Amino acid sequence: MQYRRIAVIMAGGSGERFWPLSQPHYPKLFLRLTCESQTLLDQTITNISPFISKENIFLATAVHLSDIVKKNYPQILPENIILEPIQRNTAGCIILTTAYMLARYGGDGSTITMAVLPGDHHIKNPEQFRLAMEMTLTVAEKENALVTLGINPTRPETGYGYLEIHPQTNRNSFPVHKVLRFHEKPDSITAERYLSSGNFLWNSGIFIWRVSTFLDELGRVNPDMRNAVSLMTQALINNDKETIQNIFQKLPAVSIDYVLMEKASSILTVRAEFGWDDIGSWDALDRIFPHDKKGNVVIGNPVLLDTQNTIVYNEGGEHNTSVAVIGIENLIVVITNDGVLVVPKDRAQDVRKAVDELKNRHSPHI
Amino acid sequence: MQYRRIAVIMAGGSGERFWPLSQPHYPKLFLRLTCESQTLLDQTITNISPFISKENIFLATAVHLSDIVKKNYPQILPENIILEPIQRNTAGCIILTTAYMLARYGGDGSTITMAVLPGDHHIKNPEQFRLAMEMTLTVAEKENALVTLGINPTRPETGYGYLEIHPQTNRNSFPVHKVLRFHEKPDSITAERYLSSGNFLWNSGIFIWRVSTFLDELGRVNPDMRNAVSLMTQALINNDKETIQNIFQKLPAVSIDYVLMEKASSILTVRAEFGWDDIGSWDALDRIFPHDKKGNVVIGNPVLLDTQNTIVYNEGGEHNTSVAVIGIENLIVVITNDGVLVVPKDRAQDVRKAVDELKNRHSPHI
Repeated sequence: MQYRRIAVIMAGGSGERFWPLSQPHYPKLFLRLTCESQTLLDQTITNISPFISKENIFLATAVHLSDIVKKNYPQILPENIILEPIQRNTAGCIILTTAYMLARYGGDGSTITMAVLPGDHHIKNPEQFRLAMEMTLTVAEKENALVTLGINPTRPETGYGYLEIHPQTNRNSFPVHKVLRFHEKPDSITAERYLSSGNFLWNSGIFIWRVSTFLDELGRVNPDMRNAVSLMTQALINNDKETIQNIFQKLPAVSIDYVLMEKASSILTVRAEFGWDDIGSWDALDRIFPHDKKGNVVIGNPVLLDTQNTIVYNEGGEHNTSVAVIGIENLIVVITNDGVLVVPKDRAQDVRKAVDELKNRHSPHI
Repeated sequence: MQYRRIAVIMAGGSGERFWPLSQPHYPKLFLRLTCESQTLLDQTITNISPFISKENIFLATAVHLSDIVKKNYPQILPENIILEPIQRNTAGCIILTTAYMLARYGGDGSTITMAVLPGDHHIKNPEQFRLAMEMTLTVAEKENALVTLGINPTRPETGYGYLEIHPQTNRNSFPVHKVLRFHEKPDSITAERYLSSGNFLWNSGIFIWRVSTFLDELGRVNPDMRNAVSLMTQALINNDKETIQNIFQKLPAVSIDYVLMEKASSILTVRAEFGWDDIGSWDALDRIFPHDKKGNVVIGNPVLLDTQNTIVYNEGGEHNTSVAVIGIENLIVVITNDGVLVVPKDRAQDVRKAVDELKNRHSPHI
């Protein structure tokens, strides 16, 4: 059987966790948050290009981001940019893109293998990633199952969701496991237990399936959403934008994990290691950037005195503001033209809360 | 005997300790660092005006600050602005201004009572200050002594110098004490001892004396400097700017405390309380400004989440940058158009070091 292998890059985001560098009109995927000069989205496209041909790379993004994408990412064919009318989380994104595939290529989707992946994650070893992805695509083509990429955990991370796997399910000598359960972000004690058990993998948010398998599973756990795919497919064939918009708006803004993965009957995971990092918040820079002798990550040209294990980001402004950080430990200090952030590393997740507060004040810079 | 009572406001400063708000061209005395709308220099002039007439208020400042002073402080007569060719600390300032008085008013200075005071300190109770100053001027006129204002200490402050007094020297029912010794800024254990002993006062840096008494004492401990006063007086009478400049440049850049007060034979102090604060560094804002419920001093409109006992200053910029401070304790965070400072309160003295480092880098904003 010949399969069309498709990658859908989810290129959304609300630009909150990397405030003030990220902004609603400039979410994380457009940032150069790693040592490389490419943006995270550029890196994602580069990483999948060796095994997915250009005409099969799709990008799903929000309407207000489409101009930036079209202007800065010519690697994506304009006809492969799928615009989400409003934010409907990963479930909405995947339902819409599935309808696109059915409308464009016809059939029941049984010959389309679709990989869905976030556009703003970091992969340290692209070659390992390619091998894992090719293996996963092959598994998805051979098995009637939804397949995920499970990352071998290297630390008791509390910022990721976990996949609980059946330890004795290696198939075909591939590192493929049956997923017993999806687990939300754990507390630190639970994360330690997950790490030591050996039966828990990080949920990378990268999913691979044949479109027909996806539709079967979706129909079983959520017939309404399955029906929405069919209605949207027909509307896309008819170029009936109003109907598409209407159906899309009625979808709940929930994750595909919640809608499908946690309830599906057959989920497999390929256990992989390729230096994956979701770069979920400012503290992730500690894992990405080199450190000075005192354990600081320093971007830009700030003065640091008696300061250790601190992240100072001061770059990208029209003028490079003078910055002095004295006698500080374990803090994140970010200075851009749009704002200033001071937060301990272990509170980096709470940047969202501050952004909400700033939004409430109708600040012109948020 | 009729005395001419003169006040000399020392209006210098290198603008380091309140960086990035203060700058070399904009030292602390021009800042609005208190709850009042006046600058510190404005407040000083206002505080002495009830007991020193306008023609007797002098201001000694650096050449590069003269334009700002002339433009913004019309309360000072232009002919009463004394320009210091270069920075020569308080000893240089006082020697130059003394020569001015002798040149302008003639005689041996025995009928001139001169009060020398910093222009950038804060006084909470101006009426108490007036009473203490009038008492001190009277003491200086009656006694052959250099007189200082000693502040009743209210905490074991390590940022101030101390005067050690003879406890049984009250004269004329005035709270006047003989000064036994000048002490440099103490460590915290010593400061506790000073506070509990009752025989130590804060050195306010406010000195009052008859010019002739000053010259006598100076001649005894430092004949060269005494001679410099005479030479400068003559040069001022001759309007010989080159000679003035030459003599001034040769003066060592040392404090009057070091040159004279620590060695003089007869020093008295008037023990006073008028809410004096030298506002020596950013942490002083804790003593000056009101606090929110969590003990924060907040200037401007930053977002603070789970933050306590912290000083956040975000004001005076062309545009008010969005600022978020999350999960912080006992820190100072300052954001201006010229720079950003992050420092624990107990390291506020070290801002100077960061400024030195920034200077070394030839930053355009320092």
